[in-house]
Amino acid sequence: DLVARCIDFFSAENQLLANVNMTITAGPTLEALDPVRYISNHSSGKMGFSLAEMAQKMGANVTLISGPVNLKTPKDVQRIDISSALQMHQESLNSLNQCDIFIACAAVADYRPANIETQKMKKQQGVDDLTIQLVKNPDIIADVASTENAPFCVGFAAETEHVERYALDKLKRKKLKLIAANDVAKSGQGFNSEKNALTVFSETERFAITLADKKLVASQLLTIIAQQYSQSR
Amino acid sequence: DLVARCIDFFSAENQLLANVNMTITAGPTLEALDPVRYISNHSSGKMGFSLAEMAQKMGANVTLISGPVNLKTPKDVQRIDISSALQMHQESLNSLNQCDIFIACAAVADYRPANIETQKMKKQQGVDDLTIQLVKNPDIIADVASTENAPFCVGFAAETEHVERYALDKLKRKKLKLIAANDVAKSGQGFNSEKNALTVFSETERFAITLADKKLVASQLLTIIAQQYSQSR
Repeated sequence: DLVARCIDFFSAENQLLANVNMTITAGPTLEALDPVRYISNHSSGKMGFSLAEMAQKMGANVTLISGPVNLKTPKDVQRIDISSALQMHQESLNSLNQCDIFIACAAVADYRPANIETQKMKKQQGVDDLTIQLVKNPDIIADVASTENAPFCVGFAAETEHVERYALDKLKRKKLKLIAANDVAKSGQGFNSEKNALTVFSETERFAITLADKKLVASQLLTIIAQQYSQSR
Repeated sequence: DLVARCIDFFSAENQLLANVNMTITAGPTLEALDPVRYISNHSSGKMGFSLAEMAQKMGANVTLISGPVNLKTPKDVQRIDISSALQMHQESLNSLNQCDIFIACAAVADYRPANIETQKMKKQQGVDDLTIQLVKNPDIIADVASTENAPFCVGFAAETEHVERYALDKLKRKKLKLIAANDVAKSGQGFNSEKNALTVFSETERFAITLADKKLVASQLLTIIAQQYSQSR
């Protein structure tokens, strides 16, 4: 079918990422409140796993750092499973000794509970309100981008409003080379959907990737990344 | 294999639940903080879906009210998908006009955010702490058990400590006929495992179901429920 043919075009015939070391984060993170409860974000991991699969087909050596998802590891991709944002942060920094391009596709929880209870919290009879104290998680892509000899950093911005403004702000503030923005408020794209549409921003350019199967969107995004990466060296 | 043979024994040859109307809740609930973030509980839904499948095989008319899970609907089971505890509460009450036995197997969130933001909350620069106000969700099984002409109510207690004490307390306080307790702190059972072990309490009796495939555990639990239900009429 068309998707398969397009994927072949972007991969087998175009080893645009030959021998490039790439780290991709994917999926949600789980921030435990106690052994039973957690805070998380909507994310199937499909976009990150599609990026990993297609990057490998385009010749990259891919490390995929993934939160809890129900997806198979793409062929010849090294997968590292994590649960919390702190674990993803640590594994991301660990990957940097061999990393040319870093793509932060995971839906990382911004905040985690200040305290993790070791036993299940019991509902208090007669107490109808509960207050949870959260603390900010480290900003993985910003920390990666600010290391010495930082890799070429690509972020994602999943927004429900002011998509372009928030994405460009994030690009500059976190010192990213590219940011891929999607409007998750639009139905049929992002999150648990099979499809996605992205607008990709560099400091000076913008590229539109129209609504399509996530593998096709991944191929197009990786082509843009490969071009910008080669120009940056 | 042995599992299949045991399942046949409990089902085809023993229509212990013939023509019984049964509602089963399963899976986690998701309590939205905003369009992206939520609070939830660990639950694959496998125990509730196994109960639904086996109850149908034992002759029951099964309504399965399920939170977000990655599971196929068992054959000839009526499935109602919900997301939040409030939705599950409403659908549970709706099911009562045709319900002889109600099994609350879902891992319902005890609390939900007091406010749901309609747009994604932005991380505040320089603000490292965040406080979330939660309010108590309705107690689904307690509300079902306290209706007029209440069905035969079976609860679950997933605990990490003091399992028997908490289970018996729950049985009495919520006016349940049976409660199935599992110690989720033990590895290899409960949550995302394929297996489970339960201790089932009535006001005067206790039954142990040893660690086994969730379908086998479901068959044994349903046999206990069928016996106790027929004695109660």
